[in-house]
Amino acid sequence: MAVIYEVNMSWEENVRLVTPYVPGEQPKEKNIIKLNTNENPYPPSPEAAKVLKGFDAELLKKYPDPNVTLLRESIAKYHGVKTSQVFAGVGSDDVLGMAFLTFFGGEEPVLFPDLTYSFYPVWSELYRIPFTEIPLDDTFRIRPSDYRIPCGGVIFPNPNAPTGIYETKEVIREILNDHPDVVVIVDEAYIDFAGENASVLDLIPEYENLLVTRTFSKSRSMAGARIAYAVGSEKLIDYLMAIRNSYNSYTMNSVSIAAGVASVEDDGYFRESVEKIKTTRDRFTEEIRTMGFTVLPSSANFVFAAPPAPHTAEEVFLKAREKGIYFRHFSSLRANPYLRITIGTDEEMDQVLRFFREEI
Amino acid sequence: MAVIYEVNMSWEENVRLVTPYVPGEQPKEKNIIKLNTNENPYPPSPEAAKVLKGFDAELLKKYPDPNVTLLRESIAKYHGVKTSQVFAGVGSDDVLGMAFLTFFGGEEPVLFPDLTYSFYPVWSELYRIPFTEIPLDDTFRIRPSDYRIPCGGVIFPNPNAPTGIYETKEVIREILNDHPDVVVIVDEAYIDFAGENASVLDLIPEYENLLVTRTFSKSRSMAGARIAYAVGSEKLIDYLMAIRNSYNSYTMNSVSIAAGVASVEDDGYFRESVEKIKTTRDRFTEEIRTMGFTVLPSSANFVFAAPPAPHTAEEVFLKAREKGIYFRHFSSLRANPYLRITIGTDEEMDQVLRFFREEI
Repeated sequence: MAVIYEVNMSWEENVRLVTPYVPGEQPKEKNIIKLNTNENPYPPSPEAAKVLKGFDAELLKKYPDPNVTLLRESIAKYHGVKTSQVFAGVGSDDVLGMAFLTFFGGEEPVLFPDLTYSFYPVWSELYRIPFTEIPLDDTFRIRPSDYRIPCGGVIFPNPNAPTGIYETKEVIREILNDHPDVVVIVDEAYIDFAGENASVLDLIPEYENLLVTRTFSKSRSMAGARIAYAVGSEKLIDYLMAIRNSYNSYTMNSVSIAAGVASVEDDGYFRESVEKIKTTRDRFTEEIRTMGFTVLPSSANFVFAAPPAPHTAEEVFLKAREKGIYFRHFSSLRANPYLRITIGTDEEMDQVLRFFREEI
Repeated sequence: MAVIYEVNMSWEENVRLVTPYVPGEQPKEKNIIKLNTNENPYPPSPEAAKVLKGFDAELLKKYPDPNVTLLRESIAKYHGVKTSQVFAGVGSDDVLGMAFLTFFGGEEPVLFPDLTYSFYPVWSELYRIPFTEIPLDDTFRIRPSDYRIPCGGVIFPNPNAPTGIYETKEVIREILNDHPDVVVIVDEAYIDFAGENASVLDLIPEYENLLVTRTFSKSRSMAGARIAYAVGSEKLIDYLMAIRNSYNSYTMNSVSIAAGVASVEDDGYFRESVEKIKTTRDRFTEEIRTMGFTVLPSSANFVFAAPPAPHTAEEVFLKAREKGIYFRHFSSLRANPYLRITIGTDEEMDQVLRFFREEI
């Protein structure tokens, strides 16, 4: 139905209105302990640093490779898949946002957990995609049978955020077996902290409709370079590429492409810094459990922890911020009792422990 | 109306299908003369190169500033507007794609010229925005009275691409006066090659609905860094930011932000390289006119030129490519007689002239 044209109609009537995602604070002060956006406390691979230092600025006068071939090739080789099975983008949000637009065009609701990455409902609203939040069970786990309903797609992070809980391949396989009819996205932003063979990348040959997304922002210490990717069947990747090419031919800048390749090729450094974070996480978890915190079992680079009564998460969050220690606190009913604490260096976590001992 | 759920429905039924934009070739061979994507033949500012070389890779472990404050501040200062009037994005395509999604949500068609940047119909299709192409007149000019119809928005580049033709502020003012009811976007990707005071940035205080977009890819030699921006009323920029924040909180990487600031601050170098290109363009235009080419008057860093009969643009395009000289040729009826030739260095254009002399 056409709108009746009026000369005095305001241009604001055509504007798409949204409730945008609110990212964690990015405070500008120095000397703070920033544990609120799940960044990696260790620097990127020294090989990536070398590439950055040696990058010939004159190359910037040319457009980057629109197909991001070198980076996609190195990721494909790393995972043992074809280059045509890899899609690259400007951070997970770019890759996931593009995937929402590409794959979730049905009229049935897209399904995701009630406690999960808070950008999922935002993309749904942005693209007018209906969605249904499926409650996690009482132990914050996904029950695959809850997803056995008509839907337009399924998406969840594994490990889940902000809980840090890892679901086994059997759980994911059950959802995939129930839903050959829609695209199922497993957002593996934190999977590198979940141990060897935790990823569902090996299920891709069996499920043409399984898209797995990964990021360089957490385990590869390159949040500032904006690099992420998706792996799936060639068909899925073709569809994603077509939408990407209908939005922006050149999303990835030349410097990030080059530094990203160097990071992938330096596997030793990568494994070492991931192991360090896991060790710190497990030690920190034990220590705060001893203090009376309830800590969900984490397979990520953060823990989701509730302080012992009578202390509330909000109170501890605010007190910590006063002392220059930044955690993340979500106001939703189920998340409210918890703090999401990123795992930093051992020294940083020791300072957090000292703060807890003094205040709690 | 809900779709009837069938277990055997294919996931492909929910996929958004598009006809993607086809960017100019990015050949990988060395020793070619690449005049097909309007890149700048000169390197970026040496100040930007210095920033790149001195960039501390460790900073990449943190997310970039989601508000891109430093870069927006330097652009705002450069243009004498408020920082809150500047939106930054990953190349013009990101800024314009975001603007289509934000502002062109009405049911009336968006208007743009029939011969223009070929991404406009692509974004329209991507976001299901109706559009109408308004024919340029016989001399490839915009006739404002043609736009005096009910519409959901207006967009055109100035200078226009691929024609290179510049429209005066009076023409644009006429369209703005006719359309307080919709957002009018003037895509000034090439404006720096059009001379002093050519931009409509100075009309922004008068028109709350005027959005002007700019890029670092052409005049600032930074296509590889993916930087562009939009300037408009605070209201327009707020709406754009909300949509951006609903898609990806961190679109601009830390290195590009820092190098971009350095480029803006080095105005001397910028003006000098723009002047060099204009001088080369004017000399090249004269030379090929002497050879019998029809050349539209260009205010950009390219010329739109038809070779003399019996030669066709397609034939010259293919012959040139065989010799390693890349032009752009569009197949649409009105563009078909012409080649779009980017202005390179004097040496490159001399080689093109030699090629023309031999072949035509």
